[in-house]
Amino acid sequence: MSHPHPELPLPPPLAEGGLRLVALGGLGEIGRNMTVFEYDGRLLIVDCGVLFPEPDQPGVDLILPDFRYLEGRFDLIDAVVLTHAHEDHIGALPYLLRERADIPLIGSRLTLALVRSKLTEHRLIPVVNEVAEGTRQQVGPFDLEFLSVNHSIPDALAVAIRTPAGLILHTGDFKMDQLPMDRRLTDIGGFARLGADGVDLLMSDSTNAEMPGFVVSEREIAPVLDQVFAGAEKRVIVACFASHVHRVQQVLDAAEKHGRKVAFVGRSMVRNMGVARDLGYLRVPGGMLVDMREAEEMRPQDVVLISTGSQGEPMSALSRMAGRDHPIRIAEGDTVILASSLIPGNETAVYRVINGLTRLGARVVHKGSSLVHVSGHAHAGELLFVLNVTKPGNFMPIHGEWRHLRAHARLAALSGVPEHNIVIADDGVVVDLVDGQAKISGSVPCGYVYVDGLSVGEVTDEQLKDRRILGEEGFVSVVIVLDSTSGKMVAQPEIHARGSGIDEAAFREVRPRIEEALARAAAEGITDAYQIQQLVRRAVGRWVSDHYRRRPMIIPVVVEV
Amino acid sequence: MSHPHPELPLPPPLAEGGLRLVALGGLGEIGRNMTVFEYDGRLLIVDCGVLFPEPDQPGVDLILPDFRYLEGRFDLIDAVVLTHAHEDHIGALPYLLRERADIPLIGSRLTLALVRSKLTEHRLIPVVNEVAEGTRQQVGPFDLEFLSVNHSIPDALAVAIRTPAGLILHTGDFKMDQLPMDRRLTDIGGFARLGADGVDLLMSDSTNAEMPGFVVSEREIAPVLDQVFAGAEKRVIVACFASHVHRVQQVLDAAEKHGRKVAFVGRSMVRNMGVARDLGYLRVPGGMLVDMREAEEMRPQDVVLISTGSQGEPMSALSRMAGRDHPIRIAEGDTVILASSLIPGNETAVYRVINGLTRLGARVVHKGSSLVHVSGHAHAGELLFVLNVTKPGNFMPIHGEWRHLRAHARLAALSGVPEHNIVIADDGVVVDLVDGQAKISGSVPCGYVYVDGLSVGEVTDEQLKDRRILGEEGFVSVVIVLDSTSGKMVAQPEIHARGSGIDEAAFREVRPRIEEALARAAAEGITDAYQIQQLVRRAVGRWVSDHYRRRPMIIPVVVEV
Repeated sequence: MSHPHPELPLPPPLAEGGLRLVALGGLGEIGRNMTVFEYDGRLLIVDCGVLFPEPDQPGVDLILPDFRYLEGRFDLIDAVVLTHAHEDHIGALPYLLRERADIPLIGSRLTLALVRSKLTEHRLIPVVNEVAEGTRQQVGPFDLEFLSVNHSIPDALAVAIRTPAGLILHTGDFKMDQLPMDRRLTDIGGFARLGADGVDLLMSDSTNAEMPGFVVSEREIAPVLDQVFAGAEKRVIVACFASHVHRVQQVLDAAEKHGRKVAFVGRSMVRNMGVARDLGYLRVPGGMLVDMREAEEMRPQDVVLISTGSQGEPMSALSRMAGRDHPIRIAEGDTVILASSLIPGNETAVYRVINGLTRLGARVVHKGSSLVHVSGHAHAGELLFVLNVTKPGNFMPIHGEWRHLRAHARLAALSGVPEHNIVIADDGVVVDLVDGQAKISGSVPCGYVYVDGLSVGEVTDEQLKDRRILGEEGFVSVVIVLDSTSGKMVAQPEIHARGSGIDEAAFREVRPRIEEALARAAAEGITDAYQIQQLVRRAVGRWVSDHYRRRPMIIPVVVEV
Repeated sequence: MSHPHPELPLPPPLAEGGLRLVALGGLGEIGRNMTVFEYDGRLLIVDCGVLFPEPDQPGVDLILPDFRYLEGRFDLIDAVVLTHAHEDHIGALPYLLRERADIPLIGSRLTLALVRSKLTEHRLIPVVNEVAEGTRQQVGPFDLEFLSVNHSIPDALAVAIRTPAGLILHTGDFKMDQLPMDRRLTDIGGFARLGADGVDLLMSDSTNAEMPGFVVSEREIAPVLDQVFAGAEKRVIVACFASHVHRVQQVLDAAEKHGRKVAFVGRSMVRNMGVARDLGYLRVPGGMLVDMREAEEMRPQDVVLISTGSQGEPMSALSRMAGRDHPIRIAEGDTVILASSLIPGNETAVYRVINGLTRLGARVVHKGSSLVHVSGHAHAGELLFVLNVTKPGNFMPIHGEWRHLRAHARLAALSGVPEHNIVIADDGVVVDLVDGQAKISGSVPCGYVYVDGLSVGEVTDEQLKDRRILGEEGFVSVVIVLDSTSGKMVAQPEIHARGSGIDEAAFREVRPRIEEALARAAAEGITDAYQIQQLVRRAVGRWVSDHYRRRPMIIPVVVEV
């Protein structure tokens, strides 16, 4: 297996007749999926998603793929293929379309409908090209074939990319539910046909490569929901992802069976389910839907609320219900179902919501205790099916952290892909497919691009490091006013501390140390403001460390008057 | 079921012949377990543990139970019963013993040995009273009987507390492994005997009350370890809790079978396993142990390292190996086993370690993918056994967040405990057992006590709120130097920003706003420094919000010279 390292040089020019691919996101992480394919000077992009920040990226709203590799070449992009409409596959489109508004977007009917409705909020009207499974389409030098896959959102597609350099199969996100709600199967027959033709490179979803066996069918949730509904005395509230049409369908089916009306709660839930219903992906029995205001007025035992907020997002309706800051007042006898995954990093927030709801008297059912969620990503057993029918010449695991990519690479090796034809790459690592062999040829600059408030790419890793120190240790600021001619202090040092856990009154003790440091500086003839700041910083820092064993950020400010 | 609310008043004096109990930690949270029992003016404490901070308590090292309820009454404490030696049951002892050093500590042989070795590091020599299961002992007015329970540490005890007010059974942490490594069973027969005598109040471990069924036996891990060892080409590194003697025993057994030497890594691992071995709780084949330095020199395939760091603690050996900052250099072919639970809140840190190790070439086996960990806490099936054999007059779920306490209360109700005899209480809520009825009678002040560096109880919730704001948004400080007589600025405002994501150069634009604000203040005759600060804060805050949609902490400093 090839391993990238950060010291990889820029790649040499692409060999004649070869295909180059670079992931600008999605490798070594779960999120911001985006891969650029280059053939004969033209570019094709698959997906353009966002990554949600980790706790050590505080204050960051979103993380984008790094578009630097595309700089000056946006005009060469023939299209962006969108495999499905999850945020980690489409969320960065508004930022890409800022660079060039008319890049054609290719996707299935539901994918494009959800993308359009999302882009409308950014006042963007995209150029779209709707495709369906089983169809084939030439885009620049890229001959694209689309195959159906099932996932936790309807209408997802895999894409086969043919160029003279070879055939690449990119699965997108998928699983292989054999009894999917919409009977739309992952096209294993199509994969096998491509395998018979010869798949030169398989790029396949690694999210659950560590998980043995097979994902349980979405249908298995129905009896569990039925049982929970049957035992629910008062209100039922179901939280799930706002794009999980089949999960919502199952809740609607349970509501119908138990004679309850349904209200959608949360902007993205209302928006997406409207789109899904209009296009026929969601079947809503007549007269079943009510709006929130009506739901509030109804008897609790007659209502189901289907809500966002399953990840404990602090401003979501569910979090606000848990904190008694919402018109819906949770009470003894209410039932809350978290019919969703628990994304790593969100545990504390989710358990806080569960505890809050429980304290108010609700029974909370979640995937930790009941089968109210199944994953949208193939487990190892399913991944082996794909490896075995496609018999790829080369294999590259995608969509995953290193642990997932390595686990998927191990499966590929077990299934018979030779080790030297397995490529594990990071974001920014350049892979060339030349003469049927995929190889790492170098790397291009590729980092995190942070969206924070209105700014894109202005928050740096240095700034995040400052935030982490400030968040853990707080700061102490020391203002020294010096007479610009004599260099003497003309007022007492002003010392302020926030978040340091040190009482400001205690800083009285540090003043003599500062005066000492300044006297020493004066004696040594030091007059440079920066040097004086450093002396003050050291004097205060040492005092805090000795007395409190802490390391707040020390900010000395020297003003000369 | 009785529900506490924060508005509960201080309780009335305890009724004649009644028993009062108050948890100072461990209710509504997993950790800092500590319950105070009061009878006839004397006090008995069960456990005295710490809680580890959540991500929204940044910079905090530990959280202690709130001892305020004991203020002025430390002399009335007859003993502290320690059910077992986990940190969440013993970790706050050094802080309690600061208040009165000679409080007798009662516990089993291993528990007291581990406690003594811990307290030595705090230069404390405790007064101890060793007990064993099946024994009974009078301590003040409390007649104590000890029963064996199994858990993820050997030699754990449940305690029955008899007073004229009735019999209370406190389970401590437990599960009911029917084939435990040391053949020491949870004494269900003893529980049944107490049940026959009449248990007036059962206080039982709720940690896994949401989990259906039964915990798999610790022994089931052995074949998995065997298989992983058999497939390991190079070094094997096992990370687990430093007190999990049976887990370590299983690793030693696997190492023996596969002809590998073992080194312990991490201070607490070395310390605890030394104690466990000396007392005969850990069987180490002769010549098997080597020290770290020797292990580094040996061929990788001849070595097992047993290490701390299973929770992704950044300074642990395992984290440092993942970051290439440790003498042990992880390489292709190494195997790392995380034979431990994943405590909620630690996911991001643990996955970072797994990814780091994987990237260096290690195969990482963890409980998400293999049976290399079983819980130490009884699942619902086991909890029902205890409820059914003890047939308690009253039930109080302990050790758990609200979701766990409620789930356990539901089990109690299903098993036949009348709803009005089930008490769910929070920390600080006072429960009186009078005439065979347990009832909430009020509450006492009880909050988080933060240990941060050398300080105990000095970091306030206000300070933590500041840290959260600083960590999310950073800060902007603005220093204004005014002439004390004219009130005019005598230098340009000094503006510094850290972690705000705003370039300091951009602040040039805000200077006119500050001057404007000061001019307005002067025109209105405002000379008070505090008021001027507020004006500056508002002017800068509004500018930042308008231009960046952010809310950093704004720190105005006005110095008069």
